[in-house]
Amino acid sequence: MEDIAREANVSITTVSRVIHKRDYVDEDTRKRILEIIKRYSYSIDGIAQSLRRMKTNTIGFVMTQIYPDPFQSAIAMYLEKEARKNNFRLLISNNSGSKEEEKYAIDDFIKYRVSGIVFGYLMEVKNMEIIRRNNIPFVLIERRRNLKNVPIVLLDYYESIKISINHLILKGAKKIGFIGARLGDEVENEIFESYKNTLIENGLIFDESLVYFGWMDVQTGYKGIKKFIDIKNIPDACIIINDITTLGAMQALNKFGVKIPDDMMIVTSDNTLSGFLSPPISSITFGKEMIAKCSFELIIKSIEDKDFKNKVIILKPKLIERKSSKS
Amino acid sequence: MEDIAREANVSITTVSRVIHKRDYVDEDTRKRILEIIKRYSYSIDGIAQSLRRMKTNTIGFVMTQIYPDPFQSAIAMYLEKEARKNNFRLLISNNSGSKEEEKYAIDDFIKYRVSGIVFGYLMEVKNMEIIRRNNIPFVLIERRRNLKNVPIVLLDYYESIKISINHLILKGAKKIGFIGARLGDEVENEIFESYKNTLIENGLIFDESLVYFGWMDVQTGYKGIKKFIDIKNIPDACIIINDITTLGAMQALNKFGVKIPDDMMIVTSDNTLSGFLSPPISSITFGKEMIAKCSFELIIKSIEDKDFKNKVIILKPKLIERKSSKS
Repeated sequence: MEDIAREANVSITTVSRVIHKRDYVDEDTRKRILEIIKRYSYSIDGIAQSLRRMKTNTIGFVMTQIYPDPFQSAIAMYLEKEARKNNFRLLISNNSGSKEEEKYAIDDFIKYRVSGIVFGYLMEVKNMEIIRRNNIPFVLIERRRNLKNVPIVLLDYYESIKISINHLILKGAKKIGFIGARLGDEVENEIFESYKNTLIENGLIFDESLVYFGWMDVQTGYKGIKKFIDIKNIPDACIIINDITTLGAMQALNKFGVKIPDDMMIVTSDNTLSGFLSPPISSITFGKEMIAKCSFELIIKSIEDKDFKNKVIILKPKLIERKSSKS
Repeated sequence: MEDIAREANVSITTVSRVIHKRDYVDEDTRKRILEIIKRYSYSIDGIAQSLRRMKTNTIGFVMTQIYPDPFQSAIAMYLEKEARKNNFRLLISNNSGSKEEEKYAIDDFIKYRVSGIVFGYLMEVKNMEIIRRNNIPFVLIERRRNLKNVPIVLLDYYESIKISINHLILKGAKKIGFIGARLGDEVENEIFESYKNTLIENGLIFDESLVYFGWMDVQTGYKGIKKFIDIKNIPDACIIINDITTLGAMQALNKFGVKIPDDMMIVTSDNTLSGFLSPPISSITFGKEMIAKCSFELIIKSIEDKDFKNKVIILKPKLIERKSSKS
């Protein structure tokens, strides 16, 4: 208002009167002020636009679960370290699985003009279009692997389950159970395909009663083991989808007196808590630091080169053998 | 540039020439353009200023550890849910203990005009002054309790250790050990004071050899138990500072064949993982959801009332009894 008053050579009160349509202002003055206001509004738009084009050294990380599953939190930690090394900063938005919040996070990150967005798990595929329209590079991790032309860090789960089962067979397992998340998403489907195929390839029987589908949480692990106990068909080894699910499985095994590894061997994945448990649990890992490094690399390449497209990094799994599989 | 060209009634090329001091431009035109540029720059400043005053419905959360200790991550999750319920959003910055990153996070949150900042752990007290100068309300959680005139959610650790020890004594403990973080900060000092005083109040001996100071991590838990084994002075119960430290302690107990709770009872705090372990570990809790609710309440009150000052909420602990203390 000061600027407008100065330019129109009137008092701030007069400008205020015109804006709020209050009290009498001479018609010529009113018109003059309105014209200046119009021009100023126009320039505000222009500035807002140039602000939108401004670059920040900030990367946004959109995650679906900060607690209790520590997998995405671990990636967030390494991503921040990677960003820091490269004079970038990381801002995190956790949506606890709310698609509405995912949308808000994207809107915010666009508004704050982040240089790029990394998705720990992208829920709404259509949100990608909003980001694209705003010319902000983004990278997916692990999920939405069936999308075309999207930079993504893929984790080779087919291979990870294959390695786990081969390892358990080598350690003497004859009946290998499976506790995991319900099928539907490509990741879950691939994991379960690998479980079935690898059993058959090794001359073992695929027995549906040794499979329990839930989600990836403590309850699923507990219920999975409880099911095996209830039907009196206890496998001598079990693939458990991730570390937090393993916590629940261990509680059930403990309660029903099934010993790890003597009565049942376990291999899990994620390798977040598994090494800290008693006994330490064998786990597949893709390297959370490596996942963060690769995501960051893809983002930086996308920022530096507007034509950078369809870059896919496939990470291979490694098995960390621990006491839960007689290692 | 378009706007300036239009107003000066010249081409964009001419404006560009004047800005970059390139090629010939008629002196009058040059002056006219420079004047308009000056006015536009001025209005840019004004808009930047008003943008700074603009309110957003975003709260910033500054945390020191997103992984592997899940305590602050749990608060972040509940804080986001609380924000969402109130039409606010949460943006998270994790600094992994870097004071430099803490400063950057604060700068970013100021730049993004957040409505308020919550600190999971404020490291640099002088950073408070920067936030105050920018008139952004903030709330501390747990730490920096000796500061004056600062909204803070305090956790009554003195009471929590007292409750834990009284519980262990009731369950038959005669020799209660302590594995915790090195003294220095008020929180650690208060916890240890309570441990010493409560033992003495109950007629038990305070024995320095039953104390192990490290940090709050898996290694500290392991080393603490290892120390008791090495000096052949194994307590029949132990206070362990938090859940992640307890993981390490359990690994050592497992390795050396010390059974929970028969040979050693355990009470920990945080209640993040403790309920999911085998056996489930008794834990103190202040309610992570309650901590989030109270922090949010203080922030909102500070946003709504500029004169709101020195509001302190003290949360009282609750003991969740589990198998690790014969409950």
